[in-house]
Amino acid sequence: MSEPIGRKRWAIAEGYIPSWSNGPEPEFLSHETASILNVSDEDAHVTITVYFSDREPAGPYRLTVPARRTVHQRFNELEDREPVPLGKEYASLIESNVPVVVQHTRLDSRQAENALLSTTAFADDA
Amino acid sequence: MSEPIGRKRWAIAEGYIPSWSNGPEPEFLSHETASILNVSDEDAHVTITVYFSDREPAGPYRLTVPARRTVHQRFNELEDREPVPLGKEYASLIESNVPVVVQHTRLDSRQAENALLSTTAFADDA
Amino acid sequence: MSEPIGRKRWAIAEGYIPSWSNGPEPEFLSHETASILNVSDEDAHVTITVYFSDREPAGPYRLTVPARRTVHQRFNELEDREPVPLGKEYASLIESNVPVVVQHTRLDSRQAENALLSTTAFADDA
Amino acid sequence: MSEPIGRKRWAIAEGYIPSWSNGPEPEFLSHETASILNVSDEDAHVTITVYFSDREPAGPYRLTVPARRTVHQRFNELEDREPVPLGKEYASLIESNVPVVVQHTRLDSRQAENALLSTTAFADDA
Repeated sequence: MSEPIGRKRWAIAEGYIPSWSNGPEPEFLSHETASILNVSDEDAHVTITVYFSDREPAGPYRLTVPARRTVHQRFNELEDREPVPLGKEYASLIESNVPVVVQHTRLDSRQAENALLSTTAFADDA
Repeated sequence: MSEPIGRKRWAIAEGYIPSWSNGPEPEFLSHETASILNVSDEDAHVTITVYFSDREPAGPYRLTVPARRTVHQRFNELEDREPVPLGKEYASLIESNVPVVVQHTRLDSRQAENALLSTTAFADDA
Repeated sequence: MSEPIGRKRWAIAEGYIPSWSNGPEPEFLSHETASILNVSDEDAHVTITVYFSDREPAGPYRLTVPARRTVHQRFNELEDREPVPLGKEYASLIESNVPVVVQHTRLDSRQAENALLSTTAFADDA
Repeated sequence: MSEPIGRKRWAIAEGYIPSWSNGPEPEFLSHETASILNVSDEDAHVTITVYFSDREPAGPYRLTVPARRTVHQRFNELEDREPVPLGKEYASLIESNVPVVVQHTRLDSRQAENALLSTTAFADDA
């Protein structure tokens, strides 16, 4: 049995999916990802709410991170509700019923050579 | 009603706005950003104080992050007081009346191909 | 005598070793690293468990970080069990018998100019 | 009077100063930096201890971060003891008598286009 690690509420204040890309897809498609790790023995039911600068939030988008699995969810591919717009600033709140760990990554391939950023997201105390 | 997430005091120890840029503006203008997320139902009144290596701090610069919104504030565009100088090392303290989440990002486009960095800022316990 | 710093359980939710590389090895071989610092006066016996999106976890891989040393462990070089596959999303759990500090880094050299990302991993409370 | 923010003990598990550089110095010299912010009204007396994979630690290197100032200390320029070697893996422990905030950054200019990484360092509880 795996002891859980992580928290149930996470936030990523930075969000921006570049509007265009260079190179073969899907590897070099400009994208942002919330990588979610669930080491517990229970499936994690996760919601992502997307915040903007000029309108009410979108979502919640729903996904499942099965027990002992990771899901690297591209914001570009959130599809059960409206798609996340390209070239627009956003932020996100990730909530789960079991503790998970969240990391934020962007690959920017607008130019011939790609650029990367990544950070562990902010974990709520609760 | 949204349960708040975050803290009221944040710090970013690294700061540096490159002095020049390549590529179309505003996307490829070299810049640094403090992305601030306020998931609460109350507007966040935020102050940013900018610290230097060789002089007293500048600011506080004031901005509002409305309820359920994110503001990606470019340090280049802090304008109610003196502008943050380019090509000079600085750091910043971000204070809010309601809990917010802060992430720091730089796009460096001094060369033909841009480079990116990002990190969740340091959150005070309080 | 060195006072320890760190935690005994860490997680890295993002993991991806690019499938190809440009430039002289080993410096420019695309890789991901878990950098582990042990400032204590006791050797750290560390296990790494690797999680995937579509199968049960691999590992635990075992390594030792001697007292007052750092080990920058490339995931590409975990070899006492099955190798970590290239071009496939994964995540990892790092556990130690003494407190250590863990940081995650990727060098992506799939293109002529390399890209870098790095973040302090998520530290469990315990 | 400024209320302090930060912690007194920090660690950076990743460290690596690339052995060569491209572009005009000092901006494009490959380097690693510990950016330290002291918002308090008291000078911070800081020591940096550098850890390696194959030998005893170097240091402590000493510096002062004056009250209400930031110092972006390049590891390349630690000079009161032996210089930090290039092209060699290391890690670091930063200790201060007053609370400070520490962020780690690398500029890698070994290729024509530079790459960047940055992360808030790991803060001890104490």
